[in-house]
Parts: sequence; C-alpha cells; structure tokens
Amino acid sequence: MRHEDIKSVYNQEEYIGKEITVCGWVRTIRRLKNMCFVEINDGTSLKNLQLVVDNNNLENMQFFKQLSVGSSIAVNGIVVNSINPTQKIELEVKKAQLLGDCPTDYPIQKKKQNMEYLREYVHLRTRTNTFNAVFRVRSVLAKAIHDYFQENNFIYINTPIITGSNCEGAGEMFRVTTLDIDKVSKENYNPNIYDMDFFGKKVGLTISGQLEAEAMACSLGKVYTFGPSFRAENSNTKRHAAEFWLIEPEVAFADLNDIIVIINDIVKFIINRVLAECSEEIKFFTKFYDNSLFNRLINVVESDFGILDYTDAIKFLEKSDLAFEFPVYWGCDLKNEHLRYLTDVVYKKPMYLINYPKNLKPFYIKTNADGKTVASADLYFPGIGDIIGACQKEDNFELLNNRIKELNMTEEDYYWYMDLRKYGTVPHSGFGIGLERLVMYTTGIDNIRDTISFPRTKCKKLKL
Amino acid sequence: MRHEDIKSVYNQEEYIGKEITVCGWVRTIRRLKNMCFVEINDGTSLKNLQLVVDNNNLENMQFFKQLSVGSSIAVNGIVVNSINPTQKIELEVKKAQLLGDCPTDYPIQKKKQNMEYLREYVHLRTRTNTFNAVFRVRSVLAKAIHDYFQENNFIYINTPIITGSNCEGAGEMFRVTTLDIDKVSKENYNPNIYDMDFFGKKVGLTISGQLEAEAMACSLGKVYTFGPSFRAENSNTKRHAAEFWLIEPEVAFADLNDIIVIINDIVKFIINRVLAECSEEIKFFTKFYDNSLFNRLINVVESDFGILDYTDAIKFLEKSDLAFEFPVYWGCDLKNEHLRYLTDVVYKKPMYLINYPKNLKPFYIKTNADGKTVASADLYFPGIGDIIGACQKEDNFELLNNRIKELNMTEEDYYWYMDLRKYGTVPHSGFGIGLERLVMYTTGIDNIRDTISFPRTKCKKLKL
Repeated sequence: MRHEDIKSVYNQEEYIGKEITVCGWVRTIRRLKNMCFVEINDGTSLKNLQLVVDNNNLENMQFFKQLSVGSSIAVNGIVVNSINPTQKIELEVKKAQLLGDCPTDYPIQKKKQNMEYLREYVHLRTRTNTFNAVFRVRSVLAKAIHDYFQENNFIYINTPIITGSNCEGAGEMFRVTTLDIDKVSKENYNPNIYDMDFFGKKVGLTISGQLEAEAMACSLGKVYTFGPSFRAENSNTKRHAAEFWLIEPEVAFADLNDIIVIINDIVKFIINRVLAECSEEIKFFTKFYDNSLFNRLINVVESDFGILDYTDAIKFLEKSDLAFEFPVYWGCDLKNEHLRYLTDVVYKKPMYLINYPKNLKPFYIKTNADGKTVASADLYFPGIGDIIGACQKEDNFELLNNRIKELNMTEEDYYWYMDLRKYGTVPHSGFGIGLERLVMYTTGIDNIRDTISFPRTKCKKLKL
Repeated sequence: MRHEDIKSVYNQEEYIGKEITVCGWVRTIRRLKNMCFVEINDGTSLKNLQLVVDNNNLENMQFFKQLSVGSSIAVNGIVVNSINPTQKIELEVKKAQLLGDCPTDYPIQKKKQNMEYLREYVHLRTRTNTFNAVFRVRSVLAKAIHDYFQENNFIYINTPIITGSNCEGAGEMFRVTTLDIDKVSKENYNPNIYDMDFFGKKVGLTISGQLEAEAMACSLGKVYTFGPSFRAENSNTKRHAAEFWLIEPEVAFADLNDIIVIINDIVKFIINRVLAECSEEIKFFTKFYDNSLFNRLINVVESDFGILDYTDAIKFLEKSDLAFEFPVYWGCDLKNEHLRYLTDVVYKKPMYLINYPKNLKPFYIKTNADGKTVASADLYFPGIGDIIGACQKEDNFELLNNRIKELNMTEEDYYWYMDLRKYGTVPHSGFGIGLERLVMYTTGIDNIRDTISFPRTKCKKLKL
C-alpha cells in the first residue's frame, strides 16, 4: 500500500499541489450541505489531516455519508494550503477506500474520556490524542538519551535481566523459574529444589544493572544501560510500577563532580530536544494537563541546578519555622515534605542533594572523608521529586570489603565485583534515570500507568 | 578527573601539540635502554594510545619501571605525531599517576586466551581487544537501528516483559512469581495458588512483544520495540540464549511487499553504518576471526536480496541431485541443510523465503489466497542462517477468529487482539531482528555467548 505518512506531508513543502495517497483512522466527520470535512490520523503525527469532500463527487459523498468514527480508510487526493488558520494544509479528496469499518460500540469515542476508563482499554487508548502524544514524547526522550551518550563516546550495553545477585533478602524481587509451581506444591518438600531449576540456583528479575555496568565501565570506559527493571513492591502509588525502564550510565575515571557535570548536560540536552521535536505535544499537554509545563521545562534548560549538602540541608530545615510532620535531625531520611519545601519553595529549580548519610545508602557508594556520609547526589525537580540518583562507587578494595562484611553480605557472591577493585581499580561514578518519571515530568501526566503501553502494577488479577 | 577520551584524541587533529591528560589501563610495556613505551587503553577506542617515556625524567622512569600490565593510570603529556606507521599519534609523558595497581595473578594476560577461558571472566574479558570490539559493534548496531526507525517516523515502544499471554502450553516460558517456592513445596496443594501471586494469575517472561506491538501500530502507525526476550529452551547451541534482545517493528497500512522493502533498507543502512563507524573493528575481526567478513558485509550492501517462494524452493530442491538427510516434500519444514544449500550455494546472497505452509507458522499470520500458505518472509544470510523473520498479520476478524478456534486457543485471552480487527482494522505487517545474531553476523564471532555481556544459557549452576 504505497502511501505517505501524514507527518511527512505536514513537514515537507513539496507535497503542496501533488496527488498523494494517505491512510488513517477517522477521528471526526462534519457533514455540511455541500461539503464534508473528515479528519484522519495515521499515528505518525499528533495533528490530524483534514479531508475535504466536495458534493459534486456523488460516489465520494455516498462513501463519506456512511463512514463512522474509528474506521480506517485509504484516501487519494491533492494536498492544498488550507484557508483554516488552525491547520497548514488539507487534502482535496479524489477517491477513498474503506479498509476497516468501526461498529458503534467503539470504546474510544470523540468525547474526552477519563484516564481511568482508558486504562481499561490499553490496546485502544493510543488512538486518543493524549496517548498519541505521550508515546511520541517517550520515544523522542529515548532517542535523545541514546544520541547524547553515543555522541559522547559511551557504549550502549545490556546488563542481564535474569540475575542471581541481590537475591537474598531483597523481598521486592520477582523470582524467575521453570519449576512447575502447581506440581511443586503437590510434592514433598525438597530443600534443594533450585538445583532442578533452569539455572541451578535461585534467580530473579533485575532491580538494577549498575553492578554489572561497573564491570563494563571498568574496561569499556563509558557505558550506559537502557533496559527494563523490576520491583515486586506491594505499593499502589502514582509513581511506582512493578516494571519500568531504567537508564544507568557508568563512567570510569570520574568522581562525583564529574558525573554531576554530565547529568547537567544530558538533562538540558534531552529537554531541549523535546522542546524542539515535540512542540505540538508540549503545547497540548500545557493546555490540557499542566498549565505550568512549558515554563517549567524552559526553567530547567535555563537554570544552573542547585547543589545542597545534606548536612547543610538539615541545618537549614532545623532553622525554618515550618511545622513538619516528620522531625528533622542529622541522620534522618528526608521526607517528601522536606524535599518539596527545599525544591519548590527555596530553590525553585532542579537541585542536587549530595553527601547523604552512609547508613541510608547502598553498600557500594564511596564513603566520604568524614566517615559518616557518602558520595551521593540525588537530583530533585520542583513539583515532581527525584528523577535521577547518582553516586561515586567505592573503588578501594579494603574499604569495600569491610563494608560488605559489616553488612553481613555473602562475600562469595561479590568476588567478581571485588575483582574490579583488585585489578587496576579506577575511580568511577554513575547515575540512574527512570524513563517513566522523565516522561511524567515532560508531559505533566501524573500517573505512571499512563506513560507505559501495558503497565504492570500490583493488582488483583492482571488483565492485559 | 578532567581528562580526554583516547577516541577523541585520535579523531581530532587539534590535539596535536597540546598538553592533555588521559587515563587508561596498561596493555603493554616495552622497556628499552633509554626509553620506555607503554600502551594504554581507556575503552573508548579499540586502538591503544602509546606513551613515550624519556629516560631523562628519572621520576617517570622509576614509575614506569614498577608498572604492571592491567594497572590503571592517569598520564599528563603532549600529543605528537608518531613516526611509527601503525599509529597516528603518541603521547610524550610529562607526569604519570597510578590509580590502581594490578597483581600478577591478573587473569587477562597479554597472550591470546581462548574464548572458553574468557567466559569464566565475563567481568574482565571486556578488557581484551576482542570484547572491546564486540561490544562497540553491538552498540553501534543498536544505535543504527534506533536512528533508522526514528528517521522514518517510527515510534519506539516498550512492550511488557512480564506477560500473562502465551502462557498456556508454552513450555519454553520462564515463569515469574513472588510466591515463595520453598514454602509452597512445604504446604498442601492449593489449586488456586496463583490467586495469591503478585498479579493474581500465572505470568511469565515475554517470548515476543509482537502482539502488543500490533496494538500500538494500529494507532501510532509505525512502531518498533527494542527489548529483551526469553526462551527457557533446554538447548545448548552456539546460536541460542535464554535471554536475548529483540527488535520488533510493526507497520500499519503495510503488506508483506511493503515490509520487505523496509527490511532491505534497514539491513543495508545498519551494515553501512558499521562499515563506516567500526572500520577498525571490522578489520580486526576479518584478520583474527573470519577472513571473509569484510567481503561478506560488502556483498550484503551491494546485492539485491533474492526472493524465493516456498513452493518453488520445494520444486527446486526436489529436482536437485543432492542427497539430503531429511527428505524434501511440499509441507516439510526446511532444515539447515536445505537452507544452507539455497543461500550458500545457489543464491550466494541474502534471500527471503516467502509464503511458508500455514501449519508450520503461528496463528496470527495472514493466510494467502491458496488457503495453504501464509504471508511470511524469512530472510536468510549465507553462512549464518536466518536473522530476520517477517510476516503480514491476519487483519480479517472472521478469519482470525476461525483460526483461534481451529487451534483450540483460549478465545477470551485474545479479546483485545480481536478488538484490533473489530474497530477500524488495517493491513499491517512486522518483523523481528535478533540483535545478538546480527552481532554474530557483523563480527564473525560464532558463539552467541560472546556477544552478550553476561550471557544466560542453560547451565548447571549460574555463576555470574
């Protein structure tokens, strides 16, 4: 079916005056006395293409009279400049063909449906403007991330999804098995049951690829992952999904300051890209979902991000007159109320919170000279919270080994990780970006379920 | 640690004569009477950078005298043109600093180690030239794939990894659970055990995202996935992994011929990209792993791919004088021996085998007018076999519904898939590319385990 993408027809002047074929799903039909206006969308663009049907063509009038919203058609016609100021071009129809009709019980009607209703139809909701725009922004963000890293000598790596590490004690991991659970539950208890499993041991779905990414960075220099990550958390919030996509860069020969420079750079790079390539979508979301969106994104690319030391943050919050629900003291894990105050009220721009207490962070982060804090940096955005977490890794064999012992971790599971510190260790740092949270931030969509094609969250019974 | 990537130093003329800092791991040390030559690699380039240490600088000579292979260092010096014809530039060392030393039990010594040995050290093997090159090619291929699709109005989508579909009868699926298998095996048999699981039903790891990709294409028009896929197959071959990465584009308003045009285009696009961006790596692999590699890749970009109808292939093979192990007859599933003969001996270039018997292909492929074959196209490459499988999907509600009934599939699981045919159905086609097989093809590496950072294959006990 030779045809043109509607996106191309909009973007390329040379189509004007040409006869072309386009395909698409019917979005609206307006039947006037002498004319018929039909808008179709083929998914390549947020904008519909308006078809103009002249009543002199009886065959066409007959065809469009019977057409229903949701049907798919192929149309042949001439691209002309539109006199309607809201659209640049339209198509004067010469011939149309029905590809698939659409019965009247079509769940995606023109009237605005609420997000909860549309979540019941994840397989059809992408036919709405909202989801058309969400998934285009998501795609453009993903591409911008790849472009940034590859232009800066990073190598894209895929760390394993099925993993034997982090398994013990991590209650939030999904287990992966080929054992027949129905059958297992009928048999007698077998303490060595995992010996019979596919990988001969207890394995699960990755919660992060960063340890493996370190191995790759300590040889390939600059690497980044871009893959799915999993949490079997029993939480039901707007910001958590059981399956989400994570980007984890890791850089050899880089300390925390170096990695902060990279984060500043990539955040501005990708937001600028979205502003340039998704201007229609950003306008749409600003109008219908979050009035502050456009200005918020401009603020990000134009501001120097703040840097606040955890210890200074505590002093500052202790001095403030605000009555927080959770008390503030050195060593406390800062809550949303504290962080919102710092970002939304005090800084009013993205802000790194650095040097968090050692006991509140994972074992692999480099301990600072004070012995109490670690080289961490979490980037908070006003109005949304943290999207990026960064840290410098402990590269000293002795210190890391002590930490593993201190925390009673199974030393033998980390022999390979220690090897990275044994053979030519280097200072190295990395960060993690949650793709869906980035989509939420750049669209104003406030529920993570609406940024994922087929979302996986804790539910009574997974439907689709 | 402000420093330059060795790749940038090689690629940018303006570094010549400048004083810079580079970091890297020591690959070789040659100590002469008045000089010392040290090669370092920082992972950004297959090429090492040669450091020249003059014996007039006693402090430096002392430093480099004690240095061992595998150590990491930071070096300050002046970039100069090299008189050695095998390298463009070298660095005259002014000052060097040890970052991490390397004991003599370092498993990655300079002598060439075999691949099997290196598989025991997946966390260190990327410090060799071979794996440095493999993972750079893999990354460049991935980037080329994203570039191609995004430049052609495709939207990158992520289909779910954890899925409830395809579960029945698919013995080769990994199951995903939060049930405690140890505990389950101690309890009495509970027929409703999955009600208590995280998603309230039996779920597993995706073997393909193409059904979900269809839903996205039937709204967003042109989409592609790029994500991990899983097979719990008990096979132990050089071409199969339990976890691998799959790219699955799906295009609305496209029949099988349209999709073949796209495949021709993308295959040449990505091979050309690798030839341009990884010329050093291709030279390396051609020299050390597969003498025919370079010519093979040139052959791909320069030839028009063949198209052979299954029925014609059968006639042709039946007429040939060759004694095949497996007999050839219409309706047989062609084996490696037949396919190798057709691609390697007859066609000598990539070749599509189209219109396979209906009974040998999945339910969702469009049945041809003959009622016996389906609109499939598998692209075979000489010397390696199939890398890409394509097909047009059945878009007719009645025909698809009949097929689902015919095969005794659980109809209610596919209600959403049928909706795509009920509401504005469109002809649509897609294909799948296995990333690792593409890496194998473009590097000459003959074992899939050596194209994945941490490979997952059937094993006695997963180590790392």
